[in-house]
Amino acid sequence: MAGRYGKKALLVTGKQSMRKSGILDELERILGEAGIDSVIFDKVEPNPSYSTVEAGADTAISKKCDMVIGCGGGSAMDAAKAIAIASLNNKEISSFFEGETPSKAMPIIEITTTAGTGSEVDRYFVLTNPETKEKNATGFKCSYPAAAIVDPMLMKTMPPRLTAATGIDAFFHGLESYVSRLSTPISELYAKEAMRLIINNLYEAFRNGKNMEAREKMALASTLAGLAIDVSRTTLLHALEHPVSGHLNAVHGEGLAALSLAYMEFTLPLCPEKFANVASLFGEDIDGLPEQEAAMKSIDGMKKFLRKFGMDIGLRELGVNEDMIDVFVEEAGKSPISKTNPRPASPADMREIYLKSL
Amino acid sequence: MAGRYGKKALLVTGKQSMRKSGILDELERILGEAGIDSVIFDKVEPNPSYSTVEAGADTAISKKCDMVIGCGGGSAMDAAKAIAIASLNNKEISSFFEGETPSKAMPIIEITTTAGTGSEVDRYFVLTNPETKEKNATGFKCSYPAAAIVDPMLMKTMPPRLTAATGIDAFFHGLESYVSRLSTPISELYAKEAMRLIINNLYEAFRNGKNMEAREKMALASTLAGLAIDVSRTTLLHALEHPVSGHLNAVHGEGLAALSLAYMEFTLPLCPEKFANVASLFGEDIDGLPEQEAAMKSIDGMKKFLRKFGMDIGLRELGVNEDMIDVFVEEAGKSPISKTNPRPASPADMREIYLKSL
Repeated sequence: MAGRYGKKALLVTGKQSMRKSGILDELERILGEAGIDSVIFDKVEPNPSYSTVEAGADTAISKKCDMVIGCGGGSAMDAAKAIAIASLNNKEISSFFEGETPSKAMPIIEITTTAGTGSEVDRYFVLTNPETKEKNATGFKCSYPAAAIVDPMLMKTMPPRLTAATGIDAFFHGLESYVSRLSTPISELYAKEAMRLIINNLYEAFRNGKNMEAREKMALASTLAGLAIDVSRTTLLHALEHPVSGHLNAVHGEGLAALSLAYMEFTLPLCPEKFANVASLFGEDIDGLPEQEAAMKSIDGMKKFLRKFGMDIGLRELGVNEDMIDVFVEEAGKSPISKTNPRPASPADMREIYLKSL
Repeated sequence: MAGRYGKKALLVTGKQSMRKSGILDELERILGEAGIDSVIFDKVEPNPSYSTVEAGADTAISKKCDMVIGCGGGSAMDAAKAIAIASLNNKEISSFFEGETPSKAMPIIEITTTAGTGSEVDRYFVLTNPETKEKNATGFKCSYPAAAIVDPMLMKTMPPRLTAATGIDAFFHGLESYVSRLSTPISELYAKEAMRLIINNLYEAFRNGKNMEAREKMALASTLAGLAIDVSRTTLLHALEHPVSGHLNAVHGEGLAALSLAYMEFTLPLCPEKFANVASLFGEDIDGLPEQEAAMKSIDGMKKFLRKFGMDIGLRELGVNEDMIDVFVEEAGKSPISKTNPRPASPADMREIYLKSL
């Protein structure tokens, strides 16, 4: 399949797990059989930085690669998109987070090994500025993957904690795109099905990673959630989380979990019907309740759900303290996805959500 | 919006209803205000023929149109796609039903005024050979509409019988793509939601055409069903119906209704789980039933549903008699969509479905 897109691939991946699991060797072998040369760039760290992307682009240029294959979780896949852009546009990757639009990118193939990000089917990528620790998202027509491989077999070896953190990221892609001001009937359909599948299957994938039916359902859920955010984007919760994982190098899904209850409580008064539907998906009994009360039940459902995975955590456990909050509020406020929330949040509102989540 | 695609539009539509309802005048006015000239081609008949398309392409060429706007139901929208192709490729339109692939087409905008075909979001078009009366479907990358307008306000004036016939066509797009051998998790999601919306809203749109909520839900359902068949296509039922409307100029949705019960009975033994889900969507009680029996309940549900619209009809009411069946079987067998059925049908099987449906 890759032969359609190029002759020499830069394989973009993380530092260890793809090598250890044998996935990388297998991939090199398959590409070799198809007559495609490959160059490995395995320096992608969690929450990848601009400088990693520049180094990847330098490798792609010097080795004359003509396509990029991202293999791993969101960090590897996002870095692959950014490298595909950086290697063909004579500009620093940071400029594309400041209003510049790239004219082209190398063809991108994404191979997802977690069921979380959905990055394999959307245009977005998130990078961290290594100096300021600011974490920002952007995306362009040319950063759509040309092809995506979503194979639950590649997710089998994910450890339970990573399964939970990535699955919860996918859940919030579903929930946030469902309530987003940019939601459409079709993105809502993707989002609801993603949430339903995650509620029904994440615990089994967490408990028994070798259960391929659960892994398959989670793979589908995260793909659907990726399609949903490609249309409707995420909202305030993702905007609030990015400073947390950017500054503290925390796991993104854990940051989302820590902020989620206060975020939901803040947001639900302005779209109670949607949050009531989420409560139903959690199996909460909302029969006959007034809409606002039914919506509140989604928080009960979320709490119980997080507890199953030991993800009922606070921001302090991720290293956040009160002194950091002013910077976080400022950065979150600059994010375009703080504007898609059904309830607009002032700096004071954001501050309060952070404080409640400590 | 149309300004993005061209400067002079060929407006392809049926002989009367768009003019009578005022939609055509309104459309000319809007295009005029946007500085776009328009030429009207209002000769599209139900089950449009190759010759109509050739005449439309001649008009487009002689008037130097650079885009095509289809406005109406499936006949007008399908004719628009075919004209967009015929006017830029120096070949007869019939050749594209015989294996030729067109290299390009004029940009196509589709405005749907029924909630049935889904043609506004898929690549397919169906034409009838005026000599043999054979009705065939085809589709290409270049026949995807560049834009679609799906506005339930344009569906308000549809008479009840047309509302029912087009809604039932959309229902079978959902059902057939759901059971199709080409179905995917995403096409199944579209298909199930389309069926659910139609079961819950078609009767209200039929009973009270001015109920805009029901019209809106039907518009969404038919769009989702169109997206579903773009992935998974239809199956044997559509293959069996095309000779009926091709030879007898019958209403496509009525042909589907007449054939549907025998088609379901034939098909369901090979995918009982899916048909059991359809029975559930109809509200049939399948609790504790063995899978095959649960699947059979979908026929009960379908019968009751058709009866609500007076669509519990036989092929004889559409003018079919036994002598025609040999020709119908031969034509249906040639259709590629007879191959997507979960249960393959021999000529004898098809004959039996036709006979049972008389």
